[in-house]
Amino acid sequence: MSRPGIFITLEGIEGAGKTTQVRRIVEFMESQGFECIATREPGGTDIGAKIRAILLNSEHITLAPMAELLLYEADRAQHLARLVKPALETGKCVICDRFCDATTAYQGHARGLSLDFINGLHAQILEGLAPDLTLLFDLPAEIGLTRARARLDAQNSTGLEGRFEAEELAFHQKVRKGYLSLAKDAPGRFAIVDAEAPPDQVWDQTKDLLARFLAQRSAA
Amino acid sequence: MSRPGIFITLEGIEGAGKTTQVRRIVEFMESQGFECIATREPGGTDIGAKIRAILLNSEHITLAPMAELLLYEADRAQHLARLVKPALETGKCVICDRFCDATTAYQGHARGLSLDFINGLHAQILEGLAPDLTLLFDLPAEIGLTRARARLDAQNSTGLEGRFEAEELAFHQKVRKGYLSLAKDAPGRFAIVDAEAPPDQVWDQTKDLLARFLAQRSAA
Repeated sequence: MSRPGIFITLEGIEGAGKTTQVRRIVEFMESQGFECIATREPGGTDIGAKIRAILLNSEHITLAPMAELLLYEADRAQHLARLVKPALETGKCVICDRFCDATTAYQGHARGLSLDFINGLHAQILEGLAPDLTLLFDLPAEIGLTRARARLDAQNSTGLEGRFEAEELAFHQKVRKGYLSLAKDAPGRFAIVDAEAPPDQVWDQTKDLLARFLAQRSAA
Repeated sequence: MSRPGIFITLEGIEGAGKTTQVRRIVEFMESQGFECIATREPGGTDIGAKIRAILLNSEHITLAPMAELLLYEADRAQHLARLVKPALETGKCVICDRFCDATTAYQGHARGLSLDFINGLHAQILEGLAPDLTLLFDLPAEIGLTRARARLDAQNSTGLEGRFEAEELAFHQKVRKGYLSLAKDAPGRFAIVDAEAPPDQVWDQTKDLLARFLAQRSAA
């Protein structure tokens, strides 16, 4: 470890149950003695919350793919500079719901924007930073989408955060495939969780992966 | 000309008088038979207006330079896709208050972000598009800044659009120097207007430059 702190990212398609797991991961890591910050992209900072409102608004059907990509990266640059990096530098454990892999999967693999361009943006923005562990909550797109739309119907009838849930199934299948391809290319950083299972079983898998990560980390 | 339409951009530091000249340029170009669209960056589209509100809000003192850059580029990508390119493709004359050169001058030369990175972003976003004519309204930074702050005091006491006017003089001097360096590197595209003169004299210079541009264009 060349820097203090632990950086854990959660990834997965809509309806993968990440938000539920974030809370449990924080409790677990705190029980292991780590001071934790739970955050998310987009929207992990005050300015990022305004960017998130633009990105997820389901009325923004004219948002161009390149503009969408750059808004995600702007949110990320702000988040890194003002929250993630300062927290890691003081030794905290940062648990982040979505990070760069989401952009590569959604805007690259699914929207079809250049992966080379996206990788180049990340190299410039991250300046060498990378997550220590990325938990990919994987499940078939049709199941995730059904869950996500049901949650949206229950929580938010205003359409303020439904732009991605409105994409068709084929889009979400491409996102899932993109995530699995990223995980295959970086097996040392990624751990895959079967997110089709009920939340308690998803948590059992997650907790085992965290315990293994911490064991490897103290052995290193 | 490999594409239809005419793309004219206006550049200059705060207080250079661009906004006044845009209206006159539209009238002049319409009198020459061109159908015109006057627009601006940031904020030339509905979604761009929301990005502009983030960028110019003087309360956003924590906005990181990289996030600022990427918000400008996101606004630009949306503007190009939904307004500038469609207008040029149907043969219109697009007159745009600030464009890529502003980002290179402000975020590159003045904020110090990598010019190579900014040029690479523009290459990806513009896909070969470039202005046919860039009018640089040049004047000493101290004069521009005094004008801009007076206008801000008169128009807008809420602080919603004063983030750049709040930068110190040295920042605006770097922006001016950046613009002049860009103009030197692209003398075929840039025309420099002495913007220290009163508005009517600025307009006389501008009109002469437009007439020369149109004469060269019909000779080509």
